[in-house]
Amino acid sequence: MPTDTGKLYLVSLGTGDPDQLTLRADRIMRAADLVLGPGDAPVRYAGQLAGKPFMEAGHGLFTPMARRRDTPEAVDAEEGRRRTAIRDCIAAGGTVAVLSFGDPTLYGPQVGYLDAFRDLQPEVVPGISSFAAANAALACALTGGSTSQSVILSLGKNANAGYAGSDRLSVLAQSRSALVLFTMKTDLGRVVEELRAGYPGDTPVAIVCHAGNAAKQEVLRATLDTLVEVASRRELPFEHLVYVGDFLAHPRGDYQ
Amino acid sequence: MPTDTGKLYLVSLGTGDPDQLTLRADRIMRAADLVLGPGDAPVRYAGQLAGKPFMEAGHGLFTPMARRRDTPEAVDAEEGRRRTAIRDCIAAGGTVAVLSFGDPTLYGPQVGYLDAFRDLQPEVVPGISSFAAANAALACALTGGSTSQSVILSLGKNANAGYAGSDRLSVLAQSRSALVLFTMKTDLGRVVEELRAGYPGDTPVAIVCHAGNAAKQEVLRATLDTLVEVASRRELPFEHLVYVGDFLAHPRGDYQ
Repeated sequence: MPTDTGKLYLVSLGTGDPDQLTLRADRIMRAADLVLGPGDAPVRYAGQLAGKPFMEAGHGLFTPMARRRDTPEAVDAEEGRRRTAIRDCIAAGGTVAVLSFGDPTLYGPQVGYLDAFRDLQPEVVPGISSFAAANAALACALTGGSTSQSVILSLGKNANAGYAGSDRLSVLAQSRSALVLFTMKTDLGRVVEELRAGYPGDTPVAIVCHAGNAAKQEVLRATLDTLVEVASRRELPFEHLVYVGDFLAHPRGDYQ
Repeated sequence: MPTDTGKLYLVSLGTGDPDQLTLRADRIMRAADLVLGPGDAPVRYAGQLAGKPFMEAGHGLFTPMARRRDTPEAVDAEEGRRRTAIRDCIAAGGTVAVLSFGDPTLYGPQVGYLDAFRDLQPEVVPGISSFAAANAALACALTGGSTSQSVILSLGKNANAGYAGSDRLSVLAQSRSALVLFTMKTDLGRVVEELRAGYPGDTPVAIVCHAGNAAKQEVLRATLDTLVEVASRRELPFEHLVYVGDFLAHPRGDYQ
């Protein structure tokens, strides 16, 4: 429940194109008394943020992530400055918006704010994830596959040697669902090897680059057998998702 | 690529609250020459749609779904009227917006329009799915589980007797991922039975009712062992999602 005075929001910016904001996110950003977010947010969202106090939000702060990239002392100092600014603003009855690209709850680097400020009952303002934007780029029913009507979001790195989670790609592959790989630290050769545990070699694959960026978005097509070769033809941008599944050959969908 | 004259959009309305639209969807709705969508859209989105030609979009038209609820003749007639209106409008250089709640590519009843009008290069305008809204309601990292960093979207009915897909819930349960069940035709007793193939009985569960509806949204908590009993205490609304996974006990997230 919102309190009368003081409120902390974790606001999705969508995928970065300024018109991918929701009306709700737009309103909350305009009304905020203090904003934390990506360094270029005050320029990119000048209409919403002009003249407001702003701090860079820090990648992975308030999670163990930050402590793997820096010393405990440096992280404590970084977190401390933000903690003080946020709590002072809220205590004075202000509203604070922490901005994050995509869905902050899906591999989001700002999700730690939710736990660190749990006592303030922070509210997440949902937005367009790269997943939703890439689905739109593909323009077909993810849930319309002929073998599976399910969708799995996972990480390319789960195919790497030594990964000990219960969600190795070879396990996930058993259901032959529509698979969406967020591609941080991905070895595509290993990915293909693990996926062969469930998917036939002729399973369609799509690589969606720069999902939700109207100027740069692009879709490359392959199969599981040709994925490594297709991907090797060019330098893939950091921002790409890999989709695997027979749904790519069944655009209409049929789930009930 | 957009054509200069005539354009077909499949536009997400988000979860139904008027401020859950993106700025982009808002603009496209206002500019459209013909709109198809849920019957109450002209009232609910009067600001965007006032005075525009409007047709009800029809649940599952242009997919096999519609043909299971009505005679081929009736469906042909329904589709025919809409096909003519859309093609006439586009041929005259107009823009057409087909409106859909949530992510139209995730169990969406309007996804058939994409295939039926593929030659017009329809464009999907992404929006807030019930999934994104429910993630926000839970306000924790879906990808922050201790056993799995993956997320699976599936259907409660995949636990039902006779379901022959490769994505039975007992198969999906093997990875112990964050599981999100869209709850059409769900027998919760059978769901729990299938999920026990992978998840311990004390795995946390959340039922998110009316996700993204600010006035009615509610989260109920249970475990796999208590889910049937907790759900039986009250009448669940049609609009609810069931979340299962140890991520619910690890709000901070830690994925890299």
